Amino acid sequence: MTGIDTISVVALVGSLRADSVNRRLFERAQELAPDDVRLTEAPIRDVPLFDDDLITERSEAGMPASVQLLRSQLRAADAILFVSPEYNYSIPGVLKNAIDWASRGAAHPFADKPVAIMGASGGMRGTVRMQYHLRQACVYLDAHPINKPEVLITGAAAQLGPGGELEPATAELVREQLLALAAWTRRLRG
Amino acid sequence: MTGIDTISVVALVGSLRADSVNRRLFERAQELAPDDVRLTEAPIRDVPLFDDDLITERSEAGMPASVQLLRSQLRAADAILFVSPEYNYSIPGVLKNAIDWASRGAAHPFADKPVAIMGASGGMRGTVRMQYHLRQACVYLDAHPINKPEVLITGAAAQLGPGGELEPATAELVREQLLALAAWTRRLRG
Amino acid sequence: MTGIDTISVVALVGSLRADSVNRRLFERAQELAPDDVRLTEAPIRDVPLFDDDLITERSEAGMPASVQLLRSQLRAADAILFVSPEYNYSIPGVLKNAIDWASRGAAHPFADKPVAIMGASGGMRGTVRMQYHLRQACVYLDAHPINKPEVLITGAAAQLGPGGELEPATAELVREQLLALAAWTRRLRG
Amino acid sequence: MTGIDTISVVALVGSLRADSVNRRLFERAQELAPDDVRLTEAPIRDVPLFDDDLITERSEAGMPASVQLLRSQLRAADAILFVSPEYNYSIPGVLKNAIDWASRGAAHPFADKPVAIMGASGGMRGTVRMQYHLRQACVYLDAHPINKPEVLITGAAAQLGPGGELEPATAELVREQLLALAAWTRRLRG
Repeated sequence: MTGIDTISVVALVGSLRADSVNRRLFERAQELAPDDVRLTEAPIRDVPLFDDDLITERSEAGMPASVQLLRSQLRAADAILFVSPEYNYSIPGVLKNAIDWASRGAAHPFADKPVAIMGASGGMRGTVRMQYHLRQACVYLDAHPINKPEVLITGAAAQLGPGGELEPATAELVREQLLALAAWTRRLRG
Repeated sequence: MTGIDTISVVALVGSLRADSVNRRLFERAQELAPDDVRLTEAPIRDVPLFDDDLITERSEAGMPASVQLLRSQLRAADAILFVSPEYNYSIPGVLKNAIDWASRGAAHPFADKPVAIMGASGGMRGTVRMQYHLRQACVYLDAHPINKPEVLITGAAAQLGPGGELEPATAELVREQLLALAAWTRRLRG
Repeated sequence: MTGIDTISVVALVGSLRADSVNRRLFERAQELAPDDVRLTEAPIRDVPLFDDDLITERSEAGMPASVQLLRSQLRAADAILFVSPEYNYSIPGVLKNAIDWASRGAAHPFADKPVAIMGASGGMRGTVRMQYHLRQACVYLDAHPINKPEVLITGAAAQLGPGGELEPATAELVREQLLALAAWTRRLRG
Repeated sequence: MTGIDTISVVALVGSLRADSVNRRLFERAQELAPDDVRLTEAPIRDVPLFDDDLITERSEAGMPASVQLLRSQLRAADAILFVSPEYNYSIPGVLKNAIDWASRGAAHPFADKPVAIMGASGGMRGTVRMQYHLRQACVYLDAHPINKPEVLITGAAAQLGPGGELEPATAELVREQLLALAAWTRRLRG
């Protein structure tokens, strides 16, 4: 569906709250995306708690429907974007649970995928602790996160809360990360 | 209910699978626990995916019933034991999700609690990557994990699969960790 | 030499630069220390690059003189304070090298010691990545870092550069950490 | 000097001990390297403890001669290999110190370089904790570590001690990592 030069990026958003600053961040990223990046979301709300016993047969078809959908959306992507808060100095369980489902089996959709990570928090560190845990998971997943720029947004309420507005420098950073992800995707594609 | 010298330890088990090697490990730990340690489980299966919008008011009473139960079980404990697999080089989403719920609010049940961590895996590293992520979460939670002994069980199928049996050295290690947790709990209690 | 209620804290400073903001931070901490905390430094400048072949016999006496001195200073301390920059998202090699020397052998001086960590950086994250790596080292060392408050100072040049002054909130935080370290030391002492 | 298809890999070895199992591992890796990989070492023994005050001017020429040499060796490499023990659950100070020197300044030699990591230890975990700290440093350095295969050698004494011999599976793994590094280098080169 995308043009020959368009990079299709699928986002996983780590917060389920309707009013989440990270959901807003995802929406801002959609607006800020360069013309050749098509940014969509793979929702994770309906993914059940991971339980191997829910897999009825050892194939894609044996997984819950919500998981099959998630996996097909990730598989179709050229690159994956994580947009997530930090909970308890690590990855939100909700997001990790979706990753755990999506990564089951030999032919999982993260393998060899370019990745970028962004996060917003009210505190001073801007989800930095979460992001390094996610990078470690990417080693197992054999995904390839870009190194720079890191998007670690602080003061999330003012920028992404109700009535908030991204500071120009933050908006520029978000855009630059998407550009870097697109360039990295093309580079890895060869 | 426990005697004056009994340490009440509540375990969170990070896998929902009936046949899980980490569930078996928890059961072995129950058998191996010293007389003055009472080891029980706080189940996490019924905890929903974390969503702040499910909290109807800013108090314990506003949380889902399964979360209230989890929190009261953890609160009543003298110490907390994590028994968990490693998924994608990090904490299972299922376990992290339970922690995310239990840690909401100012008066959460992890604060100042002694903690121990054990895990079993089929691979060579015995959940080591998961355990350091969990330790980092404990900083935020203001919980106090013991340093030694670390219980990182490899070859889980032979020791904890169907018909499996813990090697004597592993059983001894599990028991030593519970003893260390009890001693640490008493030391922190003053 | 210290009174019966005085806590003796020995600091390792992770930067050798004369003008280092973290050296300044250590000096501010000395000024801000509560009356019952005696804060001194164990210098690491003369410690050679770690090389096992420099150990002439398997005892304290076989180590380089600078290392013996460092170890005796740490051993005499009631608690240890790390004051350090972050280099390359991790612990400065200079500081880690001193730790590597000090930790050699069974009876090393970190064992069972209360610990606190503070750091200052020019960037936004305030050495947070360094601090978690140091906490992981503390697991091996069997040292006990306090969880809170974390001292992660940003904007180091304005606060700790030439002519700079600590913001009142930062000074308060430094003081609170030393109080927490003293309380933790007493609690672990029993 | 290398043929048009030869990949020049420069190794940093994290132990200074003459008899080091990781030095042996580096030597084995040289023997096992595929024909199109030329593996040499950039020695770190003469690099002083990092001290910004030793830099006499803000350019390559202002650095100690040993550092200039290290940087030029790394700069000339197509890819970088870390071969290192784990000390205190993290990167050896000696190795980190060399990285800290080599990374100074805007035009440092790690930028955009393909990287691989191998390590050997006597214990069960095979330097896994060190390797993730090194990977985190690579984010700052904007270097690109391969994900797989990870080389985490246990039982180092038997395989790499005096009279020891690499198990065939270990030798194969070392060789596969070098092949993967060469392929990753070519892929990133475009």
